[in-house]
Amino acid sequence: MEKKGELVSYRPDIKVVDCTIRDGGLINDFYFTDEFVKNLYEADVAAGVDYIEFGYKASKEIFDVNSFGKWKFCNEEDIRAIVGENNTDTKISVMADVGRCDFRKDIGPKSESVIDMIRVATYINTIPAAVEMVNYCSDMGYETTLNIMAISTATMEDINIALSLIAESKADTVYVSDSYGALYPEQIRGLVDKYLKVGETFGKKVGIHAHDNQRLAYANTIEACSVGASLLDATMMGMGRGAGNCRLELLLGFLRNPKYNLNPVYSFLEKDMLPLSKEHVWGPDVQYAITGQQNQHPRTAIAFTNEGRTDYKTFYQQILDRD
Amino acid sequence: MEKKGELVSYRPDIKVVDCTIRDGGLINDFYFTDEFVKNLYEADVAAGVDYIEFGYKASKEIFDVNSFGKWKFCNEEDIRAIVGENNTDTKISVMADVGRCDFRKDIGPKSESVIDMIRVATYINTIPAAVEMVNYCSDMGYETTLNIMAISTATMEDINIALSLIAESKADTVYVSDSYGALYPEQIRGLVDKYLKVGETFGKKVGIHAHDNQRLAYANTIEACSVGASLLDATMMGMGRGAGNCRLELLLGFLRNPKYNLNPVYSFLEKDMLPLSKEHVWGPDVQYAITGQQNQHPRTAIAFTNEGRTDYKTFYQQILDRD
Repeated sequence: MEKKGELVSYRPDIKVVDCTIRDGGLINDFYFTDEFVKNLYEADVAAGVDYIEFGYKASKEIFDVNSFGKWKFCNEEDIRAIVGENNTDTKISVMADVGRCDFRKDIGPKSESVIDMIRVATYINTIPAAVEMVNYCSDMGYETTLNIMAISTATMEDINIALSLIAESKADTVYVSDSYGALYPEQIRGLVDKYLKVGETFGKKVGIHAHDNQRLAYANTIEACSVGASLLDATMMGMGRGAGNCRLELLLGFLRNPKYNLNPVYSFLEKDMLPLSKEHVWGPDVQYAITGQQNQHPRTAIAFTNEGRTDYKTFYQQILDRD
Repeated sequence: MEKKGELVSYRPDIKVVDCTIRDGGLINDFYFTDEFVKNLYEADVAAGVDYIEFGYKASKEIFDVNSFGKWKFCNEEDIRAIVGENNTDTKISVMADVGRCDFRKDIGPKSESVIDMIRVATYINTIPAAVEMVNYCSDMGYETTLNIMAISTATMEDINIALSLIAESKADTVYVSDSYGALYPEQIRGLVDKYLKVGETFGKKVGIHAHDNQRLAYANTIEACSVGASLLDATMMGMGRGAGNCRLELLLGFLRNPKYNLNPVYSFLEKDMLPLSKEHVWGPDVQYAITGQQNQHPRTAIAFTNEGRTDYKTFYQQILDRD
């Protein structure tokens, strides 16, 4: 059911992006073991996952390299230590945040890199800077995406302006990113449809990055897919900041393309994700639903979680009080 | 956003049915403490929940009263011990399964009962017996619903026949019940729309009872609501068999009717549900997604859970092998 009335067929344009390291790294400051990352890469290759995102290209001027694991910075040699020349069908992605990277210094020509795609993350007010980054990366030879984060807080007027700027950019894909996990499926369908109208005119694909604050990450992802989004973000066991993301195992089970294979995913979940899930806390809980439904950044819910609080009613009142 | 384009308004016809005792009772054989049930009732009343379902009217010939808690049988005096005359706006519901109750013996006239609504649960092949029960209960003075379970396994032809029989019955509401947690939002919208067409002609409402095997219970419930379903089932913290149900706390947060109040719900979650969740296991997990996506009864996933297994790949292969 990837498209209305097509329960058995599939759309070959759909690509799955595994963001486990990148979004999951926000949980453990990117301190994954090499063994974990290697196993994840091999699981994704065997499962037919289209892209694996290794992490961020973060500025070493802004962030202390001794305070984070290496996937915060994604040095070329660190990726190559895992993937070699990556002679597989799974492409390599990294993310770069507007204002938090030194892209002209840290991103060289594609001919010298094993990276295939660079995703530029931006808030709606820094779209011009994001377009500059996207154009630079495109000129360097990479596939590019432009991800407008926290879209639930943007006005429709601002979204329209942003899309008109992106239309003129070299971005291959524009992402609906529901960073606060605040959007309902109906709103996701409306936004994806809006993005698609621009995308179809200017030759750009649409992607979806959902968060699970309201336990809607998977639903919102498949709904976005059903209306025409083609890049779908997911993570193993939903690992990601706060409430986490769309679960990759659910998403592959939904998609009909026979190239996807769930066996290596289920093995990875048992052998690598279950142990990690005992060391770190992520995933939806009452407090994330509260911030999601109030369309707020989940930082207060993350603090509530880290403090081991369970006084949901008090937390709810605190959230409502934030004028 | 209960109906398209109506983000702020609400539909007064929407009613929430709290099934915590009834569906959650399948986890603990209905051995809830009186204190828990009393606290739940008071929380629902304070929260503005429209119906609270106390349990089943199960046959004492078929089921040993010493092997289950009292809410398997819902004797009138047991309900009254909790609710008195129930002088509140929250109505009392019970469920009766076709073939597993002695309805002529155990269900007397409404004038002698504090119960308001009787929900008849049936598989598609026992619709005639369900209609007989519904008509009996209606004649006794109760509101009635007819819940076709495991609808994901029924053919469209059988559903059409079932709906034509139900159309002629005295049921006030007909339910889409996704017992296997197998349906995607698009399929839920299609089924609810189909039921509504019959409902609008014959003066019947449509209800939704979703399971969380694929983590779609909440999404499917609000999607059903958006296309016109008006009775919405949910349980506290999603407590229910296997993967559980749509979470009542999420659903109330979605609905816009100002009569709903989340504070007593959040207090109940902390004080009564959290302790219970440490005694019993329910909720979505990988194994339930596997049976849900294969449109199978979750019994194998429940066994997998109870055995403490985590060999997801082996389980997946076992499920695929079941010809």
